[in-house]
Amino acid sequence: MSNHLTGIGASAGIAIAKAFVLENPALEIEQKTITDADAEIERFEAAVHIAKEELEVIKNHANEQLGEDKAAIFAAHLLVLSDPELLNAVKDKVNNEKVNAESAMSDVSNMFISMFENMDNEYMKERAADIRDVSKRVLAHLLGVTFTSPGAITDEVIVLAEDLTPSDTAQLNKQFVKGFATDIGGRTSHSAIMARSMEIPAVVGTKTITSEDVEGKMVIIDGIDGNVIVDPSEEEIAEYTKKKENFEAKKQEWAKLVNEPTTTKDEKHVELAANIGTPEDVKGVLENGGEGVGLYRTEFLYMGRNELPTEEEQFKSYKEVLEKMDGKPVVIRTLDIGGDKELPYLNLPKEMNPFLGFRAIRLCLEETEIFRTQLRALLRASVYGNLKVMFPMIATVGEFRQAKEMLLSVKEELIGEGVEVSEDIEVGMMVEIPATAAMADVFAKEVDFFSVGTNDLIQYTMAADRMNQKVSYLYQPYNPAILRLVKMVIDAAHKEGKWAGMCGEMAGDQIAIPILLGLGLDEFSMSATSILPARSQMTKLSKEEISSHIDHILSLATNEEVIAYVTEHFATEEL
Amino acid sequence: MSNHLTGIGASAGIAIAKAFVLENPALEIEQKTITDADAEIERFEAAVHIAKEELEVIKNHANEQLGEDKAAIFAAHLLVLSDPELLNAVKDKVNNEKVNAESAMSDVSNMFISMFENMDNEYMKERAADIRDVSKRVLAHLLGVTFTSPGAITDEVIVLAEDLTPSDTAQLNKQFVKGFATDIGGRTSHSAIMARSMEIPAVVGTKTITSEDVEGKMVIIDGIDGNVIVDPSEEEIAEYTKKKENFEAKKQEWAKLVNEPTTTKDEKHVELAANIGTPEDVKGVLENGGEGVGLYRTEFLYMGRNELPTEEEQFKSYKEVLEKMDGKPVVIRTLDIGGDKELPYLNLPKEMNPFLGFRAIRLCLEETEIFRTQLRALLRASVYGNLKVMFPMIATVGEFRQAKEMLLSVKEELIGEGVEVSEDIEVGMMVEIPATAAMADVFAKEVDFFSVGTNDLIQYTMAADRMNQKVSYLYQPYNPAILRLVKMVIDAAHKEGKWAGMCGEMAGDQIAIPILLGLGLDEFSMSATSILPARSQMTKLSKEEISSHIDHILSLATNEEVIAYVTEHFATEEL
Repeated sequence: MSNHLTGIGASAGIAIAKAFVLENPALEIEQKTITDADAEIERFEAAVHIAKEELEVIKNHANEQLGEDKAAIFAAHLLVLSDPELLNAVKDKVNNEKVNAESAMSDVSNMFISMFENMDNEYMKERAADIRDVSKRVLAHLLGVTFTSPGAITDEVIVLAEDLTPSDTAQLNKQFVKGFATDIGGRTSHSAIMARSMEIPAVVGTKTITSEDVEGKMVIIDGIDGNVIVDPSEEEIAEYTKKKENFEAKKQEWAKLVNEPTTTKDEKHVELAANIGTPEDVKGVLENGGEGVGLYRTEFLYMGRNELPTEEEQFKSYKEVLEKMDGKPVVIRTLDIGGDKELPYLNLPKEMNPFLGFRAIRLCLEETEIFRTQLRALLRASVYGNLKVMFPMIATVGEFRQAKEMLLSVKEELIGEGVEVSEDIEVGMMVEIPATAAMADVFAKEVDFFSVGTNDLIQYTMAADRMNQKVSYLYQPYNPAILRLVKMVIDAAHKEGKWAGMCGEMAGDQIAIPILLGLGLDEFSMSATSILPARSQMTKLSKEEISSHIDHILSLATNEEVIAYVTEHFATEEL
Repeated sequence: MSNHLTGIGASAGIAIAKAFVLENPALEIEQKTITDADAEIERFEAAVHIAKEELEVIKNHANEQLGEDKAAIFAAHLLVLSDPELLNAVKDKVNNEKVNAESAMSDVSNMFISMFENMDNEYMKERAADIRDVSKRVLAHLLGVTFTSPGAITDEVIVLAEDLTPSDTAQLNKQFVKGFATDIGGRTSHSAIMARSMEIPAVVGTKTITSEDVEGKMVIIDGIDGNVIVDPSEEEIAEYTKKKENFEAKKQEWAKLVNEPTTTKDEKHVELAANIGTPEDVKGVLENGGEGVGLYRTEFLYMGRNELPTEEEQFKSYKEVLEKMDGKPVVIRTLDIGGDKELPYLNLPKEMNPFLGFRAIRLCLEETEIFRTQLRALLRASVYGNLKVMFPMIATVGEFRQAKEMLLSVKEELIGEGVEVSEDIEVGMMVEIPATAAMADVFAKEVDFFSVGTNDLIQYTMAADRMNQKVSYLYQPYNPAILRLVKMVIDAAHKEGKWAGMCGEMAGDQIAIPILLGLGLDEFSMSATSILPARSQMTKLSKEEISSHIDHILSLATNEEVIAYVTEHFATEEL
């Protein structure tokens, strides 16, 4: 009889194929006394060297297949293997305690792992995962253990694993690996994000898939609803083959919309744009019919490295995006670092509540050299396309004025140097702090546009850390409180003849789209793969009709009531 | 020539007297090898025993003079000296390493101190300060060093110290110690809070007062403006004597208002209530003419102990407050733990952003046994006065409904047991999360009252941790964003015939009072010592006149513009 497991749909799509369990054999570390410490250290260095070569290959592969932001993980892994603190600790241990390199490496990396894991900080916990991944690689070489490399799979299979490390995932070959399922992980784990980029159906967090007797059996992965079926019946195979066909058909239907404008049933136009992290992402935006870039997160330029990016490096990235987008609007957000995104080389103070701390524009207005360098790069790039500059985490009118003033002073400086700068740069801001929504009418007089950042706006408005499981029930995008703030922003913008967009997850959400359309949102910026489903949904919605429901929706009391109302009254896009 | 220093006014008032520098001699710890470990451990235990006896005396003294919440600090100190983990670590060290007790104690406590200090959590950092204070006491006994005890001062002096520990401050005798100034500390440090309770003028954070040549010289402490003058000129003494007299006169003028109702120039009444932490605080409320308790923080019942308080203990405290307030309204807030207030015995998970985490009602709705016990105690006490129950950190209508339902189910349970319960208990909620302000009209249909908690409301609305120095510029009570949210709450309440209060710092603030009056706030709850100045200020303000300015104030762009406008147009109360 077939066996059903439920997990988290991490990447949409259906896959039906034989199971391939990616083993993760425990590395048995035995402590031995050695006599020749120098020879042992040489052995250690050789293992590190091979591991680094492997990581270079994986990194380059990831760079080509997945883009620079995903490849940054491997740059971080390479940094671990160049970290003198870790390397010297191992060598010292070998030298002083006369123990074998495996045991020294294992002890030292376990110490770092437990230190980082206890740091109560998501970023540091990721560092622990990095060290675990890298350390396993080095230890395998020291012990002469060969792991099944996911890149070596050449049969059509579904990969099942306790967990997939980023390096495992990056090596999956889409031609053979039809999908994967893991015991642990969540929708935002590295491997889930990669699966979506690679468009491989995936289910994570099944808890027990590798404990089942699955090897070689048929498996169905339903990445849409988060189901895994081991040893399915004929009927189930038929059912899911149908679901797969429907999904593929849907995708083909969507594909027809790539070059179409976004038009509602009542012939209203809105702009569907994409959120990107690197110039490589532009390819996906254009393939999915993006009408612009609504959010270019510039953080990736600053991450996974040892020092700040130069003006020239930044200029090249911004120019590349603007050129590739070929006159379509590109909203570039200035550095939003701090919070859950740290830059070790800036030596920022540890904070008790980093989400309420010294981050984004707050940091840029104090670290003016960092900010001015970015503004110079942006302005220099402005002549290569349709640039809009956006400031993140603005809380007060004073901050916006200060940031804009700095932009203007940098502009004058550049013009003084004879550098050409576009005269048509719109300057706007993120609305992600409740105070700015409440003051939107005042801000609207000074900005060229707003873009609502829903992830942060929701977490501050509900006072609930979006990464904290214990309060995740309060992450309520459809709570009327959020919708009311969004309405204030849109209305304020329109009153001053400005436009309002949204660049959080919510902009691509099937339940939110009808409401946002009814509220009059002008620009929807989402992950590239959501654009076509959104465009398809919009063709079935009448903006005018929805408008007449808005007052009622905003008078509802709870998130649940809003979901029920929207589902009952408006078309959503079945996946 | 006189020498001027600037610090932070920690407790209002002027003091002029001779300086007395409270020395804090470094304890020189020498590591020695011992032979008789048992004798050494006995010596250690004797020192701990004396230290505990001293702390019991200080605790009882604090309990009488300062109230139970302040005395809780010494209960925490006593816990440190009963902590087997610390005591056994010292004994083990003496036993195993054959070192003297001083050196063992010093090593062990330094280890704990550095561990707690690195924990990046305000509560844990306070624990580090506790251990430092306690450890110093034990070490002094071991070394036979006698500190000048602040309690032994019998001349009229101003105490100057690098820092005052809580135990130092609690021992100050107001009869002799006219004021104090320290090098370090802030307005919310333990010693500053105690100084305000004791009404001793104090300036903290002068950085260098003890580095000056001050011993025996005349010193002026201006706790109103945060100034310290060493060796003042005749003119300065005259000037500050005058300022002192003015302040005393003002206090006497205020004292006349103790039994007066709170009435504005245009004969409008509002309620001035007080925030309290323990039943002992009621004395101060009544002495200062409080018309009610607007916020009874029940957390202190749960803190500085090893287990949850029983229903009976809680019942007694609630009953005592209700009885002492003799029919005046008493708003008791249910447990608001988590965030910056932890209870070690609950073993709550460490959080990345505790202010956005699992706290207050979120915790109570999950840990229902804790919550039901408190609700039982509250309802049993309800027949002894005018009880109003308030839920903290409500974010959604669903949470309020759930909490109220639980209250009703507990009430039925009690009635079933034959217990008498008042039928006139109002049930309200804190408005401290932006979502609830935005949804106030919906909430107003279900609550009996609102009380705006400004400390949290400001930090969430501005997305700025109020304890984080780097973003303290964003703690803007007069930012029009905050005022607009407050207006939404008051208007929504009045539309449904409910009342709206405020129980944050802002309610007693000289700049905020005119605005809040103009917005129609019904109840102002503040620290007891702010009530009379507030009442005095209100007599000079016309509610109707201010109302006509409100639209203009809410249309201003910044915190600074609001301050300037209020200062120009309305009466404030000069201190």
